[in-house]
Amino acid sequence: MATRSTIMDTNSFRPEMAKELDPETRKLTEEREVLGPAYRLFYRKPVHLVKGVGSHLWDADGVEYLDVYNNVASVGHCHPRVVEAIANQASLLNTHTRYLHENVLNYADDILSTMPDEIDRIMFQCTGSEANDLAVRVARTYTGGQGIIVTTEAYHGNSALTSGLSPALGTAQTLGLTMRMIPTPDTYRLEIDGVPASQCRPEVFGAWMAGEVRKAVADMQRHGIAFAGLLADSIFSSDGVYPDPVGYLKPVIDAVHELGGVWIADEVQPGFTRTGDAFWGFARQGIVPDIVTSGKPMANGLPTSMMAVRHEVLEPFAGSIPYFNTFGGNPVCMAAAQAVLNVMRDEDTMGNARTVGAHFKSVLTEMQQHHACIGDVRGAGLYIACEIVKPGTKEADQPMALNILESLREHRVLTSVCGRYGNILKLRPPLVFSDSDIDWFADAFEKTLSELKA
Amino acid sequence: MATRSTIMDTNSFRPEMAKELDPETRKLTEEREVLGPAYRLFYRKPVHLVKGVGSHLWDADGVEYLDVYNNVASVGHCHPRVVEAIANQASLLNTHTRYLHENVLNYADDILSTMPDEIDRIMFQCTGSEANDLAVRVARTYTGGQGIIVTTEAYHGNSALTSGLSPALGTAQTLGLTMRMIPTPDTYRLEIDGVPASQCRPEVFGAWMAGEVRKAVADMQRHGIAFAGLLADSIFSSDGVYPDPVGYLKPVIDAVHELGGVWIADEVQPGFTRTGDAFWGFARQGIVPDIVTSGKPMANGLPTSMMAVRHEVLEPFAGSIPYFNTFGGNPVCMAAAQAVLNVMRDEDTMGNARTVGAHFKSVLTEMQQHHACIGDVRGAGLYIACEIVKPGTKEADQPMALNILESLREHRVLTSVCGRYGNILKLRPPLVFSDSDIDWFADAFEKTLSELKA
Repeated sequence: MATRSTIMDTNSFRPEMAKELDPETRKLTEEREVLGPAYRLFYRKPVHLVKGVGSHLWDADGVEYLDVYNNVASVGHCHPRVVEAIANQASLLNTHTRYLHENVLNYADDILSTMPDEIDRIMFQCTGSEANDLAVRVARTYTGGQGIIVTTEAYHGNSALTSGLSPALGTAQTLGLTMRMIPTPDTYRLEIDGVPASQCRPEVFGAWMAGEVRKAVADMQRHGIAFAGLLADSIFSSDGVYPDPVGYLKPVIDAVHELGGVWIADEVQPGFTRTGDAFWGFARQGIVPDIVTSGKPMANGLPTSMMAVRHEVLEPFAGSIPYFNTFGGNPVCMAAAQAVLNVMRDEDTMGNARTVGAHFKSVLTEMQQHHACIGDVRGAGLYIACEIVKPGTKEADQPMALNILESLREHRVLTSVCGRYGNILKLRPPLVFSDSDIDWFADAFEKTLSELKA
Repeated sequence: MATRSTIMDTNSFRPEMAKELDPETRKLTEEREVLGPAYRLFYRKPVHLVKGVGSHLWDADGVEYLDVYNNVASVGHCHPRVVEAIANQASLLNTHTRYLHENVLNYADDILSTMPDEIDRIMFQCTGSEANDLAVRVARTYTGGQGIIVTTEAYHGNSALTSGLSPALGTAQTLGLTMRMIPTPDTYRLEIDGVPASQCRPEVFGAWMAGEVRKAVADMQRHGIAFAGLLADSIFSSDGVYPDPVGYLKPVIDAVHELGGVWIADEVQPGFTRTGDAFWGFARQGIVPDIVTSGKPMANGLPTSMMAVRHEVLEPFAGSIPYFNTFGGNPVCMAAAQAVLNVMRDEDTMGNARTVGAHFKSVLTEMQQHHACIGDVRGAGLYIACEIVKPGTKEADQPMALNILESLREHRVLTSVCGRYGNILKLRPPLVFSDSDIDWFADAFEKTLSELKA
């Protein structure tokens, strides 16, 4: 199985597909030339969306879609309370943090109240990339080291620094000289001392992963690089979603600390109640990070991100180097973020992610019994991965996964793929996903698999 | 004269000043501890703003201020057309660029129509830092070099890469190993072959600066570093605002090209009609960049930025490396940016910047005759710098500049300082600044200078 090396062999429209499109869609795809070749457009037949409500989207022809992919609209597309908060604050004032404003302070307190007491400082940026970029600088200044460890399919951002820590970008992206990679904690395929990882106790699986961290740090030392920390998402989203067994990260983080590093918990994916078990992915794993970053789900689509951190870890950086983010923490973004947090509490998105997510997983597990191409169903809350494999094997079947994706799109269900082999359906809907949404998905998935005779 | 080495010896509140504050303001400053020590708060007596309209702001006690500083609210605070565009689009849909949407395409075409034909591709990010970070990566991939030149007081962003290209951050910030600095084009203090720079023809002053570029590239080569390009703002804002003589950048950019580099025009400050003479700072100088970046003034405060570029310069990067910015180019940010551009045209902000800016400069030049502490008044359009010096000399007087700043704040006028010595008043109001605003400023400035017996 080849690994991804370009941006093309995944869920992407390519210009030669344009002839299949209706004139209006074709025109829009052609106009995108102005954006240059780095922009990826989903689907052989791209979707032209114009409206969203909850977990549903509508295209320009009025066709309704089910959104099983977009975690940015965390409390549902165009949630009226978030829209109102944005409109109200935008009409009053939008300046920066060099003047006093309550919004940034109130939100800082409120979001920190969802975290362990040790995490007592927070800084605001606009994107997850900016949050991770800053977090790595903070970690390096605190530890005095440069070495960062990530997993082999990690994605942590699009800045020069974070791109170099994102092997998922493919082989054309140069990785940082001082970074090292450890294997994806692939509970579907790995065996630890001959025992399938899925059957290992968390301590055993964790000990294996801690060993990989030790090996990476030893290699850094061999090259004169001091260890700064581990940058990892507790659900390993980009690697292919590996949330279980709960507890396996404890020995890993213990090793990181023992080796003098810090753990940067990239919560862009598992945070904000997504896993259903806790507000944060690290809390689900029962561990306390040194630095927490997040972005995507934080303000339902307004560019807003954060880096929360223990004060003693922040001090060496923030006490000596000025950092100003013009838009970071502005009153409008903070109003949107506060509204999202209020909705998460009032509508109990964590409870919904837990119960609806469990139902969703059980429906998929049931379907797995009848469809041999579904190799594995795993996940936590409303983040579920569905491995598409060659029947009777664990061999990734990316072409089939992409066909499933395209067929689901024809059945008006939007999702995408992830993982090293690009064969894993990534089911990550808005947190307001409902049981009737599951029915829609299950019906479309069943039809898709029948049509593809999978 | 010492250069800045910490964040403290400039326009900053310090905790020991808290005892002077009213209880409410004091409480807010204390609550900011949660943001950590990197956040800088303006003024010994910080301002707690709650409302903005046009170039005016109001604090929590209902006191009205004149805004002579904030270029982010480019078309005026809370412009109703921008607020409406944001509210409307936020209530309809806010997704990302992997689906088709008209807003990003329409805005791309519209903003590119303000630039030379050669600049024919554009990518969207959320902050100026992200735009510059990407621009440097694009320049490096295109040229195959790593070496970037900036001026000695440049500020180009807060990411790991762009911080290393921002000497203005002070000596605690480590600069990149492959960057080199050239002197600020200080037309107030420099002499070229014994002639004051302010009296030099543009070709002569430009030839001096081109020579500095050649020396920097020669030094790079001596260290085995291939030249990638010059990252510079055509008004040299952070260095202290040096827009004239018009035309002096032509020989500099010619030298950059001759040496195999590209010019990244950082238009965060001079772009979007600010100089009054052209939509872009580079156009005012009559030169065409290879890459153009902007952010701050683009969407009146929503986090929105861009990197526009010649297609042949973009291709090597964008054709091989995926780049996705989750929030970049989203329908809401694009709606806000489009509204800003529409307002700039409909309200002729360029014309206003030109005429009101010229009047503003003439008022200040007149005041200079009566106040020996005003060493120089220079600028273009609504970006004016006022050098505060020790009378009869060109020696920077930062303590006096800071006293002026604080006194202006007492007279309800908001501004700040810039430049190597932190002694330059930075007058950079919203583009809707008016003649009556100038009267307000002039009155406050006159009182300030009298009170300080300057």
